[in-house]
Amino acid sequence: MTEHPLLTVLAQGLPATVPFVGPEAQERTRGKPFRARIGANESGFGPSPSVQAAIAAAAADMWKYCDPESHDLKSALASHLGVALGNVAVGEGIDGLLGLIVRLFVEPGRPVVTSLGAYPTFNYHVAGFGGRLVTVPYDQDREPIDGLIEAARRENAPLVYFSNPDNPMGTWWEADDVDRLIKSLPATTMLILDEAYGETAPASALPPLDVGRPNVLRLRTFSKAYGLAGLRCGYAVGEQETIRSFDKVRNHFGVNRMAQTAALAALADQDYLRGVIEQVDACRQRIAAIASANGLAALPSATNFVTFDCGGDGAFAHKVMQALLARDVFVRKPMAPVLDRCIRVSVGPAAEIDLFEQALPEALGEARG
Amino acid sequence: MTEHPLLTVLAQGLPATVPFVGPEAQERTRGKPFRARIGANESGFGPSPSVQAAIAAAAADMWKYCDPESHDLKSALASHLGVALGNVAVGEGIDGLLGLIVRLFVEPGRPVVTSLGAYPTFNYHVAGFGGRLVTVPYDQDREPIDGLIEAARRENAPLVYFSNPDNPMGTWWEADDVDRLIKSLPATTMLILDEAYGETAPASALPPLDVGRPNVLRLRTFSKAYGLAGLRCGYAVGEQETIRSFDKVRNHFGVNRMAQTAALAALADQDYLRGVIEQVDACRQRIAAIASANGLAALPSATNFVTFDCGGDGAFAHKVMQALLARDVFVRKPMAPVLDRCIRVSVGPAAEIDLFEQALPEALGEARG
Repeated sequence: MTEHPLLTVLAQGLPATVPFVGPEAQERTRGKPFRARIGANESGFGPSPSVQAAIAAAAADMWKYCDPESHDLKSALASHLGVALGNVAVGEGIDGLLGLIVRLFVEPGRPVVTSLGAYPTFNYHVAGFGGRLVTVPYDQDREPIDGLIEAARRENAPLVYFSNPDNPMGTWWEADDVDRLIKSLPATTMLILDEAYGETAPASALPPLDVGRPNVLRLRTFSKAYGLAGLRCGYAVGEQETIRSFDKVRNHFGVNRMAQTAALAALADQDYLRGVIEQVDACRQRIAAIASANGLAALPSATNFVTFDCGGDGAFAHKVMQALLARDVFVRKPMAPVLDRCIRVSVGPAAEIDLFEQALPEALGEARG
Repeated sequence: MTEHPLLTVLAQGLPATVPFVGPEAQERTRGKPFRARIGANESGFGPSPSVQAAIAAAAADMWKYCDPESHDLKSALASHLGVALGNVAVGEGIDGLLGLIVRLFVEPGRPVVTSLGAYPTFNYHVAGFGGRLVTVPYDQDREPIDGLIEAARRENAPLVYFSNPDNPMGTWWEADDVDRLIKSLPATTMLILDEAYGETAPASALPPLDVGRPNVLRLRTFSKAYGLAGLRCGYAVGEQETIRSFDKVRNHFGVNRMAQTAALAALADQDYLRGVIEQVDACRQRIAAIASANGLAALPSATNFVTFDCGGDGAFAHKVMQALLARDVFVRKPMAPVLDRCIRVSVGPAAEIDLFEQALPEALGEARG
């Protein structure tokens, strides 16, 4: 056997993987495009026209490196949130920030607590830095606050992940409960409070920002309600020393010039955001009504998608999803036990929801037959 | 003292830093913009009009996540380079790829070899993953091939960094010499061959692509000649198993949708690229002539910048740079001993070089006086 460079022991043990098979990959395999793209919790309502104009206007400037400090964007975010510039870090989507947080706080072998079936990319990063994942089953389709507290205390975990509202179930807790989680964790445990869907949640679900607390990082993104998933821009809000620690390990030019430009324009167009939130709400109700018309129970949702129980087990829900995919309707489903009885449908333009409405009874029939 | 979450031991020892102070940060400090932006080795000639059109056309699609496999871009690159799809990985600029390579191959405490004064972002990543940097001084303003070989063998280093053409000096080695480096390294040493400036180098400086070799990774980018620094898209070419290992640790959506779109369009417009390369060559000659007219010796350059000896020591060159900055001309300079006698001027549009031409004699006068 020829000698060659060796990967680190940690890297040798990791699988080469893609956490999500993108719709593009599925389209390549199918040999034809989907007609409804309502599976990745994107915002089919698109980015604001003012954002699109800002993108087009910035095209000629793409020869310039971005500002590695993202000064203008961080200033605008700080002002929008009512915190100081030093309380905000930006990253290549929440995905990028999650990787940095794991890297900063998790020594190899240390326990990291999350819910069984919660965001897989977080688990990917925990594995990637050698952390030991400790999972707690969902509690009636919600992330299990008491179970997370218990596990964090028992394990003396350096890091806990909690998303509110939750993906993939769409459910949420009220701010008082989140506050109980925050206050019940050990002071040495960092809580990642992933609020990717914060804009579409009721205000009552979001605790006030308390940037004096050194063990909470709130994560938000331009990928969901702002309609900029393709540009990868998320941000973390927290205590200044914690926020400064990102500068130890981040890829300084990672949030690229176009992402910064577009995010800044998106933040400035709160009218458009309000309109999207209304559309999201109306579309959630429509998807729930479609589920109901087919005898299925939709879970309450504070996100830009609706998860509903297909009325059978995971294998049955998988058949429903496959039958929808075969009808050119891209949707996804939860993977963990119990949750996997559901499929998950993102909001989108009426024409795409029409296709889903038409395909669902056929898909259910096919899965039952 | 309040208890709080602890950073890993490695992270505790890292400084919170920004490897480069961007021109935007300098402009904020100065309180006024630069009139010539010729300091960051960007391409002031800009991206191709066809790329700008592709960016504008894609604006409305930014609500979609990117293809995490970057299939279309990797296919086009593979075809352009005459290698297989599996020989190409893309990343968030060469910066992002360097971080991943260090993470994949460097256990904490292990030696990593580079030239003293070579790319600082590589050194940042080595520190960030706990590697021990072993530096070899430049050899007459070129990266020291023999010294790198000797150090890699002596240290049994898992990783060596070598850029050709070089930044910050602009110098280069011919392909035969690079080939000697490749063949003289231990089989267990991975060579990073950074060819960020490959497009502006003479063809004779680039060894043929040999993707059968498991211990060489060639890095290229859309940031330089293609004029897309702001979008962060670089790529690595190598043996398939090595390339696949990026899938163990990368941020799968990191090369965002706009970056993929623009890079694909840029690659398709080789006519524009050829035109830029001609402009770069003419501008290099002009900058060298300006240096010469001021009694200074420009180093030969195969890059999109020209480095020239200010005729004194590092402190003197620093004064020259400061005097240029004060005249609204953004340039940079090497930092390492011996190299630091120089300043570095990027190519750019004639109007910006005119400003430099006007400012240089004044700056030299001020530095001397």
